[in-house]
Parts: sequence; C-alpha cells; structure tokens
Amino acid sequence: MSTEVERAWAYLSRVAEPPCPELAALVDRVGPVAAADKVRRGDLDDDRLRQRTEARRESDCAQADLDVLARMGGRLITALDHEWPLLNFVAFGNVARPQGHSPLVLWAVGPVRLDEVAVRAAAIVGTRAATAYGEHVAADLAAGLVMRDVAVVSGGAFGIDGAAHRAALAGDGVTVAVVAGGIDLPYPAGHAGLLRRIAQDGLMLSEYPPGCRPTRSRFLTRNRLVAALSGATVVVEAGARSGAANTAGWAEALGRSVCAVPGPVTSAASVGCHRLLREGATLVSRSEEVIELVGRMGELAPVEQRPTSPLDALTDTERRVHDALPKRGARTADEVAFGAGIPAYQVLGALATLEVAGLVVHEGGRWRMSRRR
Amino acid sequence: MSTEVERAWAYLSRVAEPPCPELAALVDRVGPVAAADKVRRGDLDDDRLRQRTEARRESDCAQADLDVLARMGGRLITALDHEWPLLNFVAFGNVARPQGHSPLVLWAVGPVRLDEVAVRAAAIVGTRAATAYGEHVAADLAAGLVMRDVAVVSGGAFGIDGAAHRAALAGDGVTVAVVAGGIDLPYPAGHAGLLRRIAQDGLMLSEYPPGCRPTRSRFLTRNRLVAALSGATVVVEAGARSGAANTAGWAEALGRSVCAVPGPVTSAASVGCHRLLREGATLVSRSEEVIELVGRMGELAPVEQRPTSPLDALTDTERRVHDALPKRGARTADEVAFGAGIPAYQVLGALATLEVAGLVVHEGGRWRMSRRR
Repeated sequence: MSTEVERAWAYLSRVAEPPCPELAALVDRVGPVAAADKVRRGDLDDDRLRQRTEARRESDCAQADLDVLARMGGRLITALDHEWPLLNFVAFGNVARPQGHSPLVLWAVGPVRLDEVAVRAAAIVGTRAATAYGEHVAADLAAGLVMRDVAVVSGGAFGIDGAAHRAALAGDGVTVAVVAGGIDLPYPAGHAGLLRRIAQDGLMLSEYPPGCRPTRSRFLTRNRLVAALSGATVVVEAGARSGAANTAGWAEALGRSVCAVPGPVTSAASVGCHRLLREGATLVSRSEEVIELVGRMGELAPVEQRPTSPLDALTDTERRVHDALPKRGARTADEVAFGAGIPAYQVLGALATLEVAGLVVHEGGRWRMSRRR
Repeated sequence: MSTEVERAWAYLSRVAEPPCPELAALVDRVGPVAAADKVRRGDLDDDRLRQRTEARRESDCAQADLDVLARMGGRLITALDHEWPLLNFVAFGNVARPQGHSPLVLWAVGPVRLDEVAVRAAAIVGTRAATAYGEHVAADLAAGLVMRDVAVVSGGAFGIDGAAHRAALAGDGVTVAVVAGGIDLPYPAGHAGLLRRIAQDGLMLSEYPPGCRPTRSRFLTRNRLVAALSGATVVVEAGARSGAANTAGWAEALGRSVCAVPGPVTSAASVGCHRLLREGATLVSRSEEVIELVGRMGELAPVEQRPTSPLDALTDTERRVHDALPKRGARTADEVAFGAGIPAYQVLGALATLEVAGLVVHEGGRWRMSRRR
C-alpha cells in the first residue's frame, strides 16, 4: 500500500464514526484517495455523508495515527487487501441494525493473517462479572478449541473474555482480541499485559484509529465484528443485562451459530445464557460441540460414552425373565414364568440365553442370579 | 362397582404383565367379567393373548388383592370410571413403543381425583443420585407449581423425585406418586413414610396389583404413566444413563412438553439434562416457565425484570453525544461534536435532551456528566 493510499484510509477511518455505509459507498465509487480528498474539501453530494463527516473533516491526524501503528508494528487491513476476510455483512445494507455494516478499515497488530483466522474461529464471550465456574469453562473451551486449531476470538475484557484469551495463549493457539478503542489504548488497563501478548502472538484488531476511547456505543458496534469473524459465538456466562447477548444477537443476524453454556439456574451470571437457550441458542458443554459448528464438514463431536450394562442387549422377554429372579435365592422355571407372566416354554429359552451370558446360574433344577456381576 | 366386576378387574390386572393391548381389546369387546372368565378357562382366540396369560391364568388372588386395597382405603380406577383421565395413549396402539398402551387398571390410594389432577399437572423427575443443587431446584419448582395449583407428579424415588414430592406436600399441594410395584410394598423402603403421606394427602398409583415387586422393566413401563398424567415433564437432574430420560422420551412420544433444568456443565448429574436440551427440550429455570406449558391458555410466565439504565431510552445520536463526554471534566459543544463525529447543531439538541433527563450538566458554556447517577 502506498503512503498516499494508507494516509487516505487512516483519514477515512477517523472522519466518520464507523460504520458509515455512505462513506463506504463513496470509497467504492472513487477509491480511498479521491474519497478522502472529497470529504476533506466538503465536496459531497450525499447530505447524510456531509453531516456524518462535518465535525471531523478538517482534522487530519492520519500521519500521526500511522506513526503510532508503525511503532506498534501493526498494519491497516481494508477490503482491498488479500488478508480481508469474508465478513458476510452484505445482507445488512440498511436494515434493522444501523451498525450492520462491513468495517471500512481495521487497525491490526499481530503476526496472524486475519483471513486465515476467520475461516476457523469461534468467539468465546461473556460477562466481566464472571464466576469461577464461568472462567473455568471459558478456559476449558478455549483450550479445547486451539488444540484443534480453531482460533479464539473475544473482546479482551475482564472475566470470560480474558479467561478465553489466556487459555488460548497458554495452549499455543491463535487468539484475536477485537477492541472497542484505539489499539494504543489498552482497555481495560489491567489487561495491558494480556493485550500485548495477544498483539505479539495472535491478533489485536480495532475499527477505531489510535487514541479513540472505547465507549458504550463503540462496545456494541465492536461486538458485530467479534460475531462476524467467528463461525460460532459461544456465550459462557451472561447476566440479565450483558453485552454478550448483543454479540449473540449479531451472530444470529449474520447467520452464524449462536451457542450458550448452561449453568446453575441459581446463578445470576447464567441468566443471560439460559434466556438465549430458551430462544433457540445451541447448548454447548464441551469444545467438541463447538468444533462441530465451526469445523470442516463432517468434523463431528465424538459421541460421549454412556455407561453400559450387560442387560442392555437383552430382549424384552429375557429382561423380564431376569427381573423375575430374586436378588437372593433361586426359582424354578415355573416360578419364573409366573413372576414374569411369560409361558414356561419361553422362560426356558430365555434362561438358557441368560446362562450363556453369565447372568444367571442353573443349580439343581433352579435358577439364581449370577454373583459375578 | 359390583364385587364381581371388581374381582374381574383385579384378576385381569395380574394375569398379564401390563400393558397388554390384547387383553384390553378383549375387555373392550366382552367386558371385564366375561373377559376374566374366558382368560381363566383358556378360551381365547388370540394366540398372543393366550401366551401372555398362560403362566398366571390359573392363579386367582383377586379377592386377596382387593382386601389389601380395602385395608389401605384405596380403590381401583379403570377406563369405565368417571375418574379416568384422558391419557391420550390412542396414537400408540401397536407402534414402536410396545408398552405404549393405556393402562387397564390403576390401583389407587388417596383423596385426590385422578381426572382432576391430570388436567393441571407437571412431572418433576430426575436421578436418584441428585446433588444438593438438584434437590434444591426440584423443591423450588414443586413449591412454585403447587402454589399455582399445579399437581406435582413423580415416581417416589430417592433424589429428585423425593425432593419434589416433599416440597409439594410442604406447600399443601397435590402430589401424585406413580410407583412401579404393588401399592402395599413401599419402594424404596426409606420412602415408606413419604409414600404414606402421599397416599394420605395426594395420590399413590400403580398399574401393578399388591405384592408385585418393582423391577427394572416395571420402572420403565411405569415412566409412561408419569409422563401421560402430566402436561409437561421436567427433568431436573439426570446422569448419562438415567431413567428420567426415558420418562422424557415418553412425554415426547405422547405429545407432552419435555423440559429440562440446566446445571453446571462440570456436573455429571446434569449431563442427561444437557443432552435433552441439545435434542430440543425446553429449558426451564423457574416454575412460572413450567406453568406456561401446563396452565390455561394465556397463563404466561411474567417477564423477568431486566435491570434498566436511564441511557436505554436515548437515541443513537444522544447516546453517542453522551459517550463523547469524559468521565471527569467538561467539554464544549464543538469538542463533543468532534468526539462523537456528529455535526455541532445536532450535538446542541442532544445535549439539551440529556440535560433535561438529568444526565448532563451545563456550566459556563461547557457540558459535563451529571454526578447524580
């Protein structure tokens, strides 16, 4: 990317609060350099775009922003790059979700290619006020996902997000933090170290240029990117009012799988998950069930082993004959027939089968349960 | 019911292991007295019925059985009684589930009318190896159900069943125990006292005549009655291999609602519930959600109160303007316009609205967040 083009993108990234579909349309039409020029000069036909760029068009800190990015070893990713993933925002042109638009520019730091991540990624999200249970499950899921080469996407927040990122890093896996402010402003401050490690080994992404503070509305806008980058969004814990439900809503709107982890119904931190499950989210309790949703076709979760019993294979008659023997003591075939309500000639056949299976023992004309079980 | 008819029913109840659709068909055709007579004499056209009654037809302990019932203050309930509920087994004539048949005779003890119970009842079932969490939730659900006049049906077992019965009794509600052996043989023995209280204040039911031992296959057969008597079956805790899943299967086959309570994914006692939820069961976390399924039309669970914030009602512009104010300190309208990326003239309107709402304060040409929140 030439310096001129980069500076145009950086300028465009800040001049309108993203996402700004009118700006994206202009860039589509005339390219980033001409678009930046037109915006800067206020030479715009689109009234709405003029309004949305009015407040910031005269301020150009593109070069300063790019210097910050360069110092962090980062890069811009735009729809014109090979690295741009298929985010599938197309369907959301101008409908119910006003922020439902593809990002224009992503500020990125980290060695991982975004398009490679996005083909096999799951979001693990949840409340900042996580319980020990929630953090344990988030870590467990993340560890299981990276072990099977699934990238873990989250928002870098305290609680569930942090547990998921940390476990992914600990498992030498790929993790992506999509943050709601400038990549140079680690938020929360207590996660500065974690975010630095993510930027070093995984990928830290933002739609906002350096220096932007994360705000309430930016968190919500950011959530759509977490959902869009992931084949499935897993909500591990969420209170009655949690941003994680918003991310899940995005996942659904974008046609991605929405999953939730259940918890005790007595836990306030699982209320949001249970609501999602009642609304149709897929219950997941282990990473294999997530991989089933984001993995290659046919990459199915192994069926959990159920405990089995030698009685499972019996026919209905054999089972009733077996049931008719007392726990202690022996019975004649006639007594068994009466107990089971089955004709004596059928009882003899069933007893023979049970004897071969080692379930009953024949002694002196009577049968008793085998003690070997 | 005349003594002759009662004795015929009692004889028929024991002569074939229930359910026996061939026997039911004969009774339908010739009535109980003639049917008993034909079975006793072996005068049967139906080969299968001859086989199924062969072992026990010569033994008649009907009078002794009725004496036991009388001593317990109980009664027989058959399809010819007013008290017979609509069990809706019709669809299951002779298909996949061979025990899918209406019972012929129910041995009942208790002051409650079965048909009145069955129109407004929910089954609460689960593992005998319940955790403290499971027993707590079972009791909580049962207490909530009986408070709204919903009867609690269960199987009288240790664990979840017992917790549900006990809480229903404690709430002066109606509870029904469907047992898998004779009503005179309390099982498990440790629940003799509980079952006695149920028979005294609620209803104890069995398809099996007095003296019958509960067996493995009888437990499974019994489960269909628990499901059939209830508008919804709620599985509170179930291990990987639990009879509760069998009851849930019956509920589904019978067109009843299947519900499960989630728990920690780390708990073995919730594995069966989570499997049911993945297979489409309805997640329930409070009794209101069960009442919604078994109650009158429109008897909906009150929506849970979500915590609200004064920011909820703001427009997108107002929220972005609010977000653009720092936590501490004040900003001019132009600074806010730049921060929010919104034209200055729109910012002034939004700030005025926020001021009226008490969210921001105007001081000397600048705005700051209100400290009253």
